[in-house]
Amino acid sequence: MIHEDSENGHLIWQEENRRDIFKTKVFTVRENRSRSPTGESGTFTILDAPDWAIVIPVLEKAGERRFVMVRQWRHGSETLSLEFPGGVFEKGEEPSEAAARELREETAYQAGRIRKLAEMSPNPAIMANRVHFFLAGDLHYTGNQELDADEYMDVVLVSPEEVLRNMGRPPYIHALMAAALALYLQAG
Amino acid sequence: MIHEDSENGHLIWQEENRRDIFKTKVFTVRENRSRSPTGESGTFTILDAPDWAIVIPVLEKAGERRFVMVRQWRHGSETLSLEFPGGVFEKGEEPSEAAARELREETAYQAGRIRKLAEMSPNPAIMANRVHFFLAGDLHYTGNQELDADEYMDVVLVSPEEVLRNMGRPPYIHALMAAALALYLQAG
Repeated sequence: MIHEDSENGHLIWQEENRRDIFKTKVFTVRENRSRSPTGESGTFTILDAPDWAIVIPVLEKAGERRFVMVRQWRHGSETLSLEFPGGVFEKGEEPSEAAARELREETAYQAGRIRKLAEMSPNPAIMANRVHFFLAGDLHYTGNQELDADEYMDVVLVSPEEVLRNMGRPPYIHALMAAALALYLQAG
Repeated sequence: MIHEDSENGHLIWQEENRRDIFKTKVFTVRENRSRSPTGESGTFTILDAPDWAIVIPVLEKAGERRFVMVRQWRHGSETLSLEFPGGVFEKGEEPSEAAARELREETAYQAGRIRKLAEMSPNPAIMANRVHFFLAGDLHYTGNQELDADEYMDVVLVSPEEVLRNMGRPPYIHALMAAALALYLQAG
């Protein structure tokens, strides 16, 4: 998908070819050859991976607002991380279905309402996939998390003010959760 | 760096070993074997890559505030993207030096003040590196971008209100720029 206008031709590259060079269970490494706006060829390393969803679940209770968040270990940072729930789409799933399912599995909250805030690139320099941000409300507690065999997570209720105040400091270390927070603030 | 407290032992994994399995010019793919909180072993695919900086440059002019942003092609998304400037640290460079250098090279603005907002993980599930967010002010125009051979970018001045209103829609598609915006809003 190219978002361009006629004024931006001097910035736009054209893909010449692509080939997969390495596969893992999580992503595929691809090499692209593309032609620059001035006609030179360059090669670029890209990651293909499934799209995934991040859900901001808002619990309203006695006039107070709480985010339903999860605390879990992350193997890239090798730290704990306090995050909005979310996860990778399953085959054939609509984005909002994936978001609602991940919310239910990770937190045991079922969303009565779920609304897409935005679809963005987690890192358009090297990643070809998209992250879909959702806002969930009208939450009902089902009583049971349904975690994968290698998932260990605690559910934590936190006020929006506390999340905004602490974002960027441990355990709020996941930059894409800060992105979700910006979209929440934008939505007002 | 493990941020933990004694209550979180049931969430914490221990690394058993690691090995690099594929190298590209941009990142190295690593496989980690780690032991779960309940003692099972699992393998996880991780990306090692250099740290990088994102800089929010604020231009104050006749009582008006503008972000200095760059419009450029991104090879992962294969779209144009309107972003805060930034880039990868060079060897031996301090984070704030890298931020100031990238700002100067990409936009031709020299920062009189530069302040770190936060250091986060761009995606702690799979990436081991960090992204460092800075706020830059007291900007002086030097007159000349210094772009790499494969960099083509336009400098664009945008009000913070316009960026907040449009974040998440093209050309504001880079989620880590939304993260930067959240940290800007947090800083007040």
